[in-house]
Amino acid sequence: MASEFAKVVVVGVGLIGGSFSLALKAARAAGRIVGVGRRPETPERARSLGIVDSVGAMDAATLSDADLVLVAVPAAQTGSVLALLTPLVGQSTIVTDAGSTKQDVVAAARSAMGARVRRFVPGHPIAGTEHSGPDAAFPELFRDRNVVLTPLAENAAADVARVRRAWEACGARVQELGIAEHDEILAAVSHLPHVLAFALVDHVAGRPGGDKYMSFAAGGFRDFTRIASSHPEMWRDICVANRSALLKELEGYGKVLDALRDMVERGDAAALHALFEKAREARNRWLKESGS
Amino acid sequence: MASEFAKVVVVGVGLIGGSFSLALKAARAAGRIVGVGRRPETPERARSLGIVDSVGAMDAATLSDADLVLVAVPAAQTGSVLALLTPLVGQSTIVTDAGSTKQDVVAAARSAMGARVRRFVPGHPIAGTEHSGPDAAFPELFRDRNVVLTPLAENAAADVARVRRAWEACGARVQELGIAEHDEILAAVSHLPHVLAFALVDHVAGRPGGDKYMSFAAGGFRDFTRIASSHPEMWRDICVANRSALLKELEGYGKVLDALRDMVERGDAAALHALFEKAREARNRWLKESGS
Repeated sequence: MASEFAKVVVVGVGLIGGSFSLALKAARAAGRIVGVGRRPETPERARSLGIVDSVGAMDAATLSDADLVLVAVPAAQTGSVLALLTPLVGQSTIVTDAGSTKQDVVAAARSAMGARVRRFVPGHPIAGTEHSGPDAAFPELFRDRNVVLTPLAENAAADVARVRRAWEACGARVQELGIAEHDEILAAVSHLPHVLAFALVDHVAGRPGGDKYMSFAAGGFRDFTRIASSHPEMWRDICVANRSALLKELEGYGKVLDALRDMVERGDAAALHALFEKAREARNRWLKESGS
Repeated sequence: MASEFAKVVVVGVGLIGGSFSLALKAARAAGRIVGVGRRPETPERARSLGIVDSVGAMDAATLSDADLVLVAVPAAQTGSVLALLTPLVGQSTIVTDAGSTKQDVVAAARSAMGARVRRFVPGHPIAGTEHSGPDAAFPELFRDRNVVLTPLAENAAADVARVRRAWEACGARVQELGIAEHDEILAAVSHLPHVLAFALVDHVAGRPGGDKYMSFAAGGFRDFTRIASSHPEMWRDICVANRSALLKELEGYGKVLDALRDMVERGDAAALHALFEKAREARNRWLKESGS
């Protein structure tokens, strides 16, 4: 049986793009996968690791006969990559991305692609590790994870369905959200926790004698701050791109902290217990429902 | 060779007390370990799991010939347990505890024990999981973890050394800190992160539509909030007991968040990047140095 996609091009063969390639290969969903990078070292490395079949370039030879192009570069660079590839892709090539924010990517795509934006299906695989680069890629990264598509009004339903099938072949659960809705939800469940974790490490380690403090940190601190080992550039870009939703979350969280601070100050054991119990129950319910 | 401790009594055979028993047994450091509980079910369960050798009571038969008594009950109950056991223990019995806060425990011990407080060596094993009870106990819990002793001026050096050897037999790294110093450091590296994690779950899950938000949470959220599945009673008590140090940390953390909020609001990519990079480096340095 022929693969769903005869030729797939992955621009940016890092953790996300590389894992997408490996997962499509494992599912035999792609006939051929070509890696493209800003610098040739990364796709070369990906080829030597068996992640992609060959290394291409931002040219018509690579792009004109592609069925699907995944742009898996930092979201801030998506616009310029789309501007480069728009005149080179074929009439039937579908383009998708993996950016963590969608309003800025969609605006950049509209500006870069004009009417061709109808072939661009915005996506966001909600998966990752604190590691990056092709060496961090593995085929199971998306297994049972959410991948969100935020289709444009201009998208053909058939194109959205093909992108969905690509991610489903990777083992992902594909969901659709509105573009602004995506950014609001991710601000709360992803961007805010990352910012809080970076802030905690800075707060504890940055003080005089911070090393002594850190030497008494244990497993709770390690897990809480794991995401503070994430890519600083990526998180800087996300904070800037999703500024307004993140500000709203920071303000809401600040209010919860203020309330908690008041409970601690007045030694209100009952209120503290009620808040902690409610939070624990909500988390345990979520763990159960999500199978996490 | 005789064991270091002929008879050890563990009051509160939960995760901490049970793991202490198992670790001493594994190291053959105790001749006999007796479990005591407020209700008989817990030490009975511990005995049936092979965690303790027998079940005792708060009486002279159990306590008068003990070499070492570990009080591993919630810190808020330590004072009343010490008041009960002080007239029952022998002249040479050393008493220690496992409370997460030390100023309140020491004050309670002084009040409960009077001059006998000289045989009380305050301790805090910095280890745990989000689970509790004897079924959660395992002998490796303290392996390579920090155990802090905060000796009293009245303690004999030989008694402090014996408590140290008990924890070292469990595989722990034993460190000494001042009593107030312990509470300040733990407020930063443990109590604050727990409060922040509970607050995040409450903030995200507690809103209208919170379930939908939670359904898009992923691995970062799961790890960040793992400690929000901890025991609400225990954390309520810690927040009340270590109120002043925790308030200082909440205020300091609030200032870091305010600064971050301003960076996000003005879209200051360079400042965000610098803070994230510094935090990531500090965390990675800590991971390396602590072997975590």
